[in-house]
Amino acid sequence: MVTAAFARRMEVVRASEIRELLRLTANRDIISLAGGLPAPELFPAAELATLTSRILTERGASALQYSPTEGYGPLRAQIAARMNARWGTAHTADEILVVTGSQQGLDLVGKLFLDEGDEVLCESPTYVGAISAWNVMRPRWVEVPTDDEGMIISELERLLTASKRAKFIYVIPNFQNPSGRTWSLERRHQLMELATRHGISVVEDNPYGEVRFEGTHLPSLRSMDPEGLVIGLGTFSKIFCPGLRIGWIAASQPVFGKLVLLKQGADLHTPTLNQMQVSASIETGDFETRIERITAVYRERREAMSRALERELPPGGRFTRPQGGLFLWVELPEGVDSRELLGRCMEAGVAFVPGEGFYPNGGHPNTLRLNYSNMSVQRLDEGVRRLGTALRQLLAERGTQPAGSGTPAIPPQ
Amino acid sequence: MVTAAFARRMEVVRASEIRELLRLTANRDIISLAGGLPAPELFPAAELATLTSRILTERGASALQYSPTEGYGPLRAQIAARMNARWGTAHTADEILVVTGSQQGLDLVGKLFLDEGDEVLCESPTYVGAISAWNVMRPRWVEVPTDDEGMIISELERLLTASKRAKFIYVIPNFQNPSGRTWSLERRHQLMELATRHGISVVEDNPYGEVRFEGTHLPSLRSMDPEGLVIGLGTFSKIFCPGLRIGWIAASQPVFGKLVLLKQGADLHTPTLNQMQVSASIETGDFETRIERITAVYRERREAMSRALERELPPGGRFTRPQGGLFLWVELPEGVDSRELLGRCMEAGVAFVPGEGFYPNGGHPNTLRLNYSNMSVQRLDEGVRRLGTALRQLLAERGTQPAGSGTPAIPPQ
Repeated sequence: MVTAAFARRMEVVRASEIRELLRLTANRDIISLAGGLPAPELFPAAELATLTSRILTERGASALQYSPTEGYGPLRAQIAARMNARWGTAHTADEILVVTGSQQGLDLVGKLFLDEGDEVLCESPTYVGAISAWNVMRPRWVEVPTDDEGMIISELERLLTASKRAKFIYVIPNFQNPSGRTWSLERRHQLMELATRHGISVVEDNPYGEVRFEGTHLPSLRSMDPEGLVIGLGTFSKIFCPGLRIGWIAASQPVFGKLVLLKQGADLHTPTLNQMQVSASIETGDFETRIERITAVYRERREAMSRALERELPPGGRFTRPQGGLFLWVELPEGVDSRELLGRCMEAGVAFVPGEGFYPNGGHPNTLRLNYSNMSVQRLDEGVRRLGTALRQLLAERGTQPAGSGTPAIPPQ
Repeated sequence: MVTAAFARRMEVVRASEIRELLRLTANRDIISLAGGLPAPELFPAAELATLTSRILTERGASALQYSPTEGYGPLRAQIAARMNARWGTAHTADEILVVTGSQQGLDLVGKLFLDEGDEVLCESPTYVGAISAWNVMRPRWVEVPTDDEGMIISELERLLTASKRAKFIYVIPNFQNPSGRTWSLERRHQLMELATRHGISVVEDNPYGEVRFEGTHLPSLRSMDPEGLVIGLGTFSKIFCPGLRIGWIAASQPVFGKLVLLKQGADLHTPTLNQMQVSASIETGDFETRIERITAVYRERREAMSRALERELPPGGRFTRPQGGLFLWVELPEGVDSRELLGRCMEAGVAFVPGEGFYPNGGHPNTLRLNYSNMSVQRLDEGVRRLGTALRQLLAERGTQPAGSGTPAIPPQ
């Protein structure tokens, strides 16, 4: 007898709303605040042309050959050194697994930990790519309430104690996607104290941390982790370029060894040439000053979007003013459905991502995410202007005037 | 309560014997016939240096940016056109999903079809990378007996009829890894007649098909597939270079759409620049003549290894003489354990892969796989000489003289 059906997990595998939106907006005159694309004018194209010629001329045979699953040795050492200098960790190169974008890190972590019905504790809202990576394993999502300093630790403790099958806690401590929030130092310590007491793994995703506009870098959870419970995810997508798909996982044994086995089965190894390209740029290129340029440009764009939102958002609306990263989070007046607003906005020539998709268990229809990294200040301003006009029209047609005093930004923590 | 344990699937995720062997042999003077590395002297390093400079200069912003999950449009069209011209298929570009090496294709297919306990019907022996990719989903492996023409169809039918949870049939019809065998045209038709009657999917993995030393190309299973049951896997690793990690899946809807969703969760998309590099080489480079060069070189190496084995293999041993590809399969005299032989061989300075790892349910200790693509004729000859010496010593110490008349190669089909 033959069962032609797909695996049961396919019931919960759905199209990414963001990618579908990007497809819809690709060929129309729509200002897309929906994606999370870095600014391409800051990509290292010229530098990479030079470095790639050198790599292929001097080491072409190894650059184009199969290579170890763990990653290119010099790059692993460079990643460890950069993490240790920036985040207060003490990683050795042999704790770094190079992956095909940090999205693959999420896939491997899910395979390592999650049986059907196991529980993931995550920030509410959380990164939509983690939801799609892990839903394949059919976990239960336990959303932990958050405020502007991170997870509310008493809530986390309550949920963790009540949980029967918690496998790990997933957090993005810096300039979170989608909320733009950053964990305070105190909450980081509290989280790690709790995780250590419970002996539970922590997945610390840090794709945006190096793009900080103001204030000082805060130490990573891993630096407060005597037991080696933290599994760190990192990427070069936001500080170099995403098209090479180079990310990493930083983890101690035995987790590290298991992830290597899973990586072998998933794609053998990350492209060899791409790893050498990143390594060469760190070694001889314009790597660190490029991060400064990226940070300066995105800071200006966050400012432009914040100013426009202060001008356009009606009473009862709020937005985060992130200290870094690529995203800003908007709470619309209660009762406004951001999907309904999106329909209006698409007609008006602007797109964003409705917030509900960032909540694994749904809800919160009055939220949305805006991206400011991918266009000029003028275009950002025009995009938010269109959004504001559509929102005011929607509210006017309903005859509702939501309560609220002014439109203050949620203050940076 | 916290469950710190890994997912149950980790019980069956094991280290790849081949990669461990490669590690052991990497820094020693051992002739490794164990890996499956293409010949690096045939890699397109100089051509890629030129093409990459052009891509980065003219289209750097898009080459280094995020890109669609489905793959780079021009490359998808080129893949469809090349498949259709070579294998008699009728694929459109929108049936081609570019993946991060065809190993990722295996991972995605496993996620799509396999719940725990579902059954995979495969050739016995089969590709070890498929075993490691799919074991993560904890399937049951149903090994179908094979001969020199492919699966024995009456056995396949019996097993398929008896199976309660068969999800797909996995085959490598051309120059199979590890056996080196090629399916006859008649068996291909019989397989597809049976699959169509049962309505079961067929995964047709064809990494080596274009590297044919003699005879004519046989049509792919997909060309005999009126129902769209065949999911094709392909790769540029053996005809261009493996270090860029560019492979593809060719499949009809609804399978195609589901695989795209799984790919999004697994790594968002395949590296953009790498796809443009392969596309540029097909369009303007030395692509097709390079395949002829690769074929000529590997043909000579297969000849050298075959001659050496005829000379070195004692009575009772057999080996395949593949019509293409990278691998040759040896059956040692009954009673000889290839793992024991490997210990001797490592001391004597030669390595191979014991055959047992290619049987998902184990057994067949008297088999082994040899690779001939990665070294000179002289070194291949010396490697087989060392292997022969170690084997004769092992047999002599036991005082056994296995039965058998001569050492004929298994004739090519």
